Amino acid sequence: MMKVSKSTVIYSSIVVILAAALIGVLIFMINQPPAQRGVSPLVEINIMEPDSSLWAVNFPNQYATLQKTEKNNERTVYGGSLPFSKLEEDPRLLVLFAGYGFSKEYNEDRGHMNSLTDVREIDRINEKSPGTCYSCKSSDNPALWNSMGMAEYDAVLFSKLSESIDEPIGCANCHEANTMQLIVTNPALEEALAAQGKDWRTFTRQEMRTVVCGNCHVEYYFEPETNYLTFPWEGGTKIENISAYYEEEGFKDWTHPDSGSPMIKMQHPEFEFFTADSTHYNAGASCADCHMPYTRDGAAKFSTHDVKSPLLQAEAACGACHTDVEYVTGRVAIIQKQVYDTMIAAEDAILAAIGGIQTASTDVKVDAALLEEARLLHREAQLRWDFIAAENSMGFHNPEEALRILAEATNLARLAQLKSLEAAGVTIPEPKLP
Amino acid sequence: MMKVSKSTVIYSSIVVILAAALIGVLIFMINQPPAQRGVSPLVEINIMEPDSSLWAVNFPNQYATLQKTEKNNERTVYGGSLPFSKLEEDPRLLVLFAGYGFSKEYNEDRGHMNSLTDVREIDRINEKSPGTCYSCKSSDNPALWNSMGMAEYDAVLFSKLSESIDEPIGCANCHEANTMQLIVTNPALEEALAAQGKDWRTFTRQEMRTVVCGNCHVEYYFEPETNYLTFPWEGGTKIENISAYYEEEGFKDWTHPDSGSPMIKMQHPEFEFFTADSTHYNAGASCADCHMPYTRDGAAKFSTHDVKSPLLQAEAACGACHTDVEYVTGRVAIIQKQVYDTMIAAEDAILAAIGGIQTASTDVKVDAALLEEARLLHREAQLRWDFIAAENSMGFHNPEEALRILAEATNLARLAQLKSLEAAGVTIPEPKLP
Repeated sequence: MMKVSKSTVIYSSIVVILAAALIGVLIFMINQPPAQRGVSPLVEINIMEPDSSLWAVNFPNQYATLQKTEKNNERTVYGGSLPFSKLEEDPRLLVLFAGYGFSKEYNEDRGHMNSLTDVREIDRINEKSPGTCYSCKSSDNPALWNSMGMAEYDAVLFSKLSESIDEPIGCANCHEANTMQLIVTNPALEEALAAQGKDWRTFTRQEMRTVVCGNCHVEYYFEPETNYLTFPWEGGTKIENISAYYEEEGFKDWTHPDSGSPMIKMQHPEFEFFTADSTHYNAGASCADCHMPYTRDGAAKFSTHDVKSPLLQAEAACGACHTDVEYVTGRVAIIQKQVYDTMIAAEDAILAAIGGIQTASTDVKVDAALLEEARLLHREAQLRWDFIAAENSMGFHNPEEALRILAEATNLARLAQLKSLEAAGVTIPEPKLP
Repeated sequence: MMKVSKSTVIYSSIVVILAAALIGVLIFMINQPPAQRGVSPLVEINIMEPDSSLWAVNFPNQYATLQKTEKNNERTVYGGSLPFSKLEEDPRLLVLFAGYGFSKEYNEDRGHMNSLTDVREIDRINEKSPGTCYSCKSSDNPALWNSMGMAEYDAVLFSKLSESIDEPIGCANCHEANTMQLIVTNPALEEALAAQGKDWRTFTRQEMRTVVCGNCHVEYYFEPETNYLTFPWEGGTKIENISAYYEEEGFKDWTHPDSGSPMIKMQHPEFEFFTADSTHYNAGASCADCHMPYTRDGAAKFSTHDVKSPLLQAEAACGACHTDVEYVTGRVAIIQKQVYDTMIAAEDAILAAIGGIQTASTDVKVDAALLEEARLLHREAQLRWDFIAAENSMGFHNPEEALRILAEATNLARLAQLKSLEAAGVTIPEPKLP
């Protein structure tokens, strides 16, 4: 019989017990469900669920703040979310948009939750408008685009599509239900990015916090004939690229009745303008950083979905990065005033161009080719001005770019005015050259 | 006999020794010389001592870096301290400054230590020039202004004043010798501040780190008749205030030979431009923060006196406040390109205005009053453009202000061109009004 010492028995027992414990821990760890970020959802949400109130069970804070966008509307110095008539505020727009719906009705928008109510009350949109007008107005869209395809969605009449649309902008416009990841839902945005060789699925989360706003806050047009929603980004998203795109497509929104110019109306190009080398964008800030700052409710920290002007919540919005909020809001005021003054000067120059071209066009001896040049200059001036005027930040999203573009708009408008004189037979002296 | 215990004797002795020690320490402290900031000077420097090499004994690092401004000259994209001909770089200036010295010779300046050599080689300055031309060129000035008074200094001929001037820009231009405090030495600056109700003696040190640069880096003119050095700041230092000042004074630098316009040449208005609500100025930054950043030599930390473009020492200059130097120098490049492009567009517009006015002025039937209006518009356009063009930062000292002013310069130049047509009998159609 082998002799075994008492101490050997004790040591062996300890080793066996430790090994068993280790195996037990490993089995326990393997049996755990896979680690998840955050809190497990209370209820399952259907993919592309239009009804935001169903998502609210899992995300009560986000939903509660989204709801604030319905009633909690406030005016800022140059914009905000309290409706007012831009035409009453600046009657120059009556001339600039003459012959187009925006000279009949042009109001400041209210917050996201009003999107559906408000789009249905716009006089510019009627029974014969295409369904495309709903593209940015409802969380029903992702499911509809998925079932119908965007071409079909855009081919249906607005009045017909109304039957399938019940929800304003909501969770499904930017989030994937099961993962809550930010996603591009608007096929037009996906296609516009693809045309530039970009795939949003490769973007970082911080990039997505800007890109999802591009689902709607962009310049777009409806392709003639099909009304297919298209972003004019093939050559890039700077104003010069967009202008070149429209020229190449031979596209116009309307013909100006006074000047006869083939015009482009710019829509809210916040995405293009902000991402054009703005200081905040280049520094890595996203739309959500300023418009949906992190806030607290008790122990919960979340990104507010009461999307609005950062000036209405500057401590939370600017204060997350800037230590001196009073200083930065002061900067905003200075910059917006500089942009506003320069914008009004551009408008006056365009009004002068329109007056000149109108007069020249009534001249029986007018040079038709030169008159056409004047009209194109009018178009180019006005689409640049409108890129800044229709953009919702009075230039602040990209101050230097705003002022650069407005300087060029003014110059082009004056050149249009001069060209109209030339068309009417006036000899324009050559510039003095060195 | 009173009975004293041994322990009482010991305690009493300790108290007496401690009290004696405390008194000794207090006497030692009282006898110390008064506390001084920094190191005591090795040698006494005379007040207003022109010779910077004498100050160098006490401040070797500051002097050694000041010396670098002599040879250490480098080009930046738009400026720097390596001389080049601005006329060769942009021949439009030949037309813009036609009839004035700056169309004959207009070179980028070298560093501070070359000020005296370089001013004596400028062709624009000759035997008959006033002594006033030395105002920003020598550390002999404070003593001369003190002994002669500025009126007398400015009344003497340049050639005569040369006999009393041996030193380039140096310590005495900005420092009081015994305290090394920053001081305003140029009487013209003191008077210009006083005209605005400001007394530099009440300014903070950080404010002085900007104001002393205003000893020279400003717009100025010589009062006609007396050649008295004057800063046109009575109504304020924004371009609109300066323009209004010159108009009220009825002052012109020269008459443009092609257009006949009464012109103003702007000089390096860095102080006015930077302090006009620029983001860096409003945030509390001073000229010295970026152009004379704190540097180290061994254990010594000092403000470098190798004053130059921050882009040539971005780590020290921008990196003191900004964590991402590559990002901020990238911003500078973007902004300067935007300003440069807008500046060139303004120049082209002014050349067109000059061509128009010149043609109109040869017309025998020209309307003299309208022609005069066109000339004044030319003047106003060009002085705004030159405020940015002559300013040494390609707009970066105040980007939005640069672009705002250039937009207005372009518009005014086009209005001058239109007014010249009107003067020649062309009917300019009214703007289309709402």
